[in-house]
Amino acid sequence: MIPTITAFARSPDGGRGLARDMRVRWALEETGQPYEVRLVSFKAMKEPDHLALHPFGQIPTYEEGDLALFETGAIILHIAERHDGLLPKEPNGRARAITWMFAALNTVEPPILDRETTALSERGETWGEARLRLTEERIRVRLSQLSAQLGDDDWLDGAFSAGDLLMVSVLMRLGPPILDEFPSLAAYVARGQSRPAYQRAFEAQLKVFREGI
Amino acid sequence: MIPTITAFARSPDGGRGLARDMRVRWALEETGQPYEVRLVSFKAMKEPDHLALHPFGQIPTYEEGDLALFETGAIILHIAERHDGLLPKEPNGRARAITWMFAALNTVEPPILDRETTALSERGETWGEARLRLTEERIRVRLSQLSAQLGDDDWLDGAFSAGDLLMVSVLMRLGPPILDEFPSLAAYVARGQSRPAYQRAFEAQLKVFREGI
Repeated sequence: MIPTITAFARSPDGGRGLARDMRVRWALEETGQPYEVRLVSFKAMKEPDHLALHPFGQIPTYEEGDLALFETGAIILHIAERHDGLLPKEPNGRARAITWMFAALNTVEPPILDRETTALSERGETWGEARLRLTEERIRVRLSQLSAQLGDDDWLDGAFSAGDLLMVSVLMRLGPPILDEFPSLAAYVARGQSRPAYQRAFEAQLKVFREGI
Repeated sequence: MIPTITAFARSPDGGRGLARDMRVRWALEETGQPYEVRLVSFKAMKEPDHLALHPFGQIPTYEEGDLALFETGAIILHIAERHDGLLPKEPNGRARAITWMFAALNTVEPPILDRETTALSERGETWGEARLRLTEERIRVRLSQLSAQLGDDDWLDGAFSAGDLLMVSVLMRLGPPILDEFPSLAAYVARGQSRPAYQRAFEAQLKVFREGI
């Protein structure tokens, strides 16, 4: 059964691959799974049909037969558990790869999103600029710790895993110039983006932005 | 093999059960697993021995033989996968329970933590009070959506799961008065806290705060 995911009918990032459907597309490509995409408008995301799939009115969702999931992390874990390519088979390595999935979403991404929210929604406030600097300092603390962990390795724990897929995706959201202060992390992101599965996923989401399909 | 978790030698919450070791203790109690606790000071958390276990210098960690994990969500999923009591056996129900784990940590907790960070670290800034109001509006949006999802049910998707454990833990961090604006969610938190496993975990962390053991 071919799963269906949802994506923005018109992504606010202009096709740069920062919307969260990109992460799910990448996971599906890494595991060689075909998928269908249903596009939803911002208006439709807040209407009952979509809220029945995603109680918080966001994308992506994942439908496969009787199963409907939301939350990017949960969807990627679901795919990774069922198909080879995103989690080691050895139980301890598998548990550590899942740890990096949570670390990407719960420890590294929050200060990055905090900065983005401040930049997008609070710039007009009196505190906009000052708070932006403060969020950037918090991001630097996390990136410094992450960079120490990665060291000279290609990936966070041995072979490429769903943990790397999410960490690269999270760091992509930050982008230069802060990322470039940490050359090994910038190289890590480039390494992720050079994977054929990433490139197929990126092209697919860009096509939606350019052609609306 | 009995796992060892780490916890704050002196929790900044004064024993209210808001530190993240509480979530892991609760999961271990729900599944009837014995565990050991090693206390770490704020100073020790940033030193090499602890950083080797937790690259971001936080608690809790989880050690079990050769395996060392960090990230509360990953630790709880690891426990839930190996012992009965926190995930349905039926595959679709299991995937949905994991979705609620991610929803608690990635969708509901971020605005709650954002408010807490603003309250703790940015109160002295010129924007402190105004930004606190703004974070509270974002929290209300999420709680309103969560409340619609819960409806009149006891738990988010059928039987109590690791998703409920994390959602109750996240809402506990918020606490009244905002939580009390959503009576069904306040009752949901009380329902979680009335579970014998919760109470055993709560007493254990309180004992550390009171007696330092």
